[in-house]
Amino acid sequence: MKLLKDYILNNGKSINSKVLKVDSFLNHQIDPVLMMKIGEEFKRRFEGEKINKILTIEASGIAIGLAAAYAFNVPLVFAKKKVPSTMDDFYTTQVFSFTKNKDYTICIGKEFLNKEDRILIVDDFLAMGNAVLGLKKLVENAGGKVIGAGIAITKGFQDGENILKENGIRVESLAVVDSLENGEIHFR
Amino acid sequence: MKLLKDYILNNGKSINSKVLKVDSFLNHQIDPVLMMKIGEEFKRRFEGEKINKILTIEASGIAIGLAAAYAFNVPLVFAKKKVPSTMDDFYTTQVFSFTKNKDYTICIGKEFLNKEDRILIVDDFLAMGNAVLGLKKLVENAGGKVIGAGIAITKGFQDGENILKENGIRVESLAVVDSLENGEIHFR
Repeated sequence: MKLLKDYILNNGKSINSKVLKVDSFLNHQIDPVLMMKIGEEFKRRFEGEKINKILTIEASGIAIGLAAAYAFNVPLVFAKKKVPSTMDDFYTTQVFSFTKNKDYTICIGKEFLNKEDRILIVDDFLAMGNAVLGLKKLVENAGGKVIGAGIAITKGFQDGENILKENGIRVESLAVVDSLENGEIHFR
Repeated sequence: MKLLKDYILNNGKSINSKVLKVDSFLNHQIDPVLMMKIGEEFKRRFEGEKINKILTIEASGIAIGLAAAYAFNVPLVFAKKKVPSTMDDFYTTQVFSFTKNKDYTICIGKEFLNKEDRILIVDDFLAMGNAVLGLKKLVENAGGKVIGAGIAITKGFQDGENILKENGIRVESLAVVDSLENGEIHFR
């Protein structure tokens, strides 16, 4: 997606060979027009697929999730990282975060997933793919089906994209960064 | 806002006299059309005000924040509850959560607030007002100005609305719940 790549080149920062900082438009400050266009691009890429729900994880997935949900005209459900006090019946699993080098819990109220679901998972970044695999597990616990994963920025130098494909997930990345070496951003 | 009140009456649940559960459309599963209309309603209510940025707190504020930012055609900034490893210069303060009975930290990268800012704070719920006051503090630390607070659901039986007004903040609530007694939802 040219618009997203332009934003990354103009406003992103390669912090080191693994970290791309995009917090001026994607995950701390957010450009709402870019975000809604990302949602529309997911809709275009998954045209013809029957999708009835968008799924993501709080917090940085919520904005891109809302944009996708609006484009598809279906509900957004976001997995929570803590069990809310008002939630008593939920699907849950552990996700290992390489960034933070520890497991975290994700959970979704059982009433929001079911066996008729045909779900598009979306997220701002794809690195090792653990978050998407965790969400897929919750969907399948409920008997539903994951139609694909829509990712804004995929780190092409990490294994997530291949791991998701090996798990039978169609991955649509709007920008694949293949290298961040020497402070330079290179797309595939 | 009639549409929001209808959603609350049809899909909300009064858990006890203080807790209104709206997680089927507002803060776990999200109805994107409702959310975008909430953004438009904030725009209508603050018509004529010069606002250059929307501010909220992760995670449940992000969706409503994006909707507002899109309606106003300005950036959204959401305060983080943990300092990201890639952030080295930020405004921060403590916010007391009555729900969780403890303090939490909010922070915003210094590059995303400045003295020219005229900010609308938005959030899904207003109870005691501490989150909004915390955000106001960060805005004022940067020399900026809070123009008002746009709230989806205000708990009219708690003190937040008055506290914010006493602090000079214009509050626009789209639904004010005055009572949740006996499992019934009563609006002001």
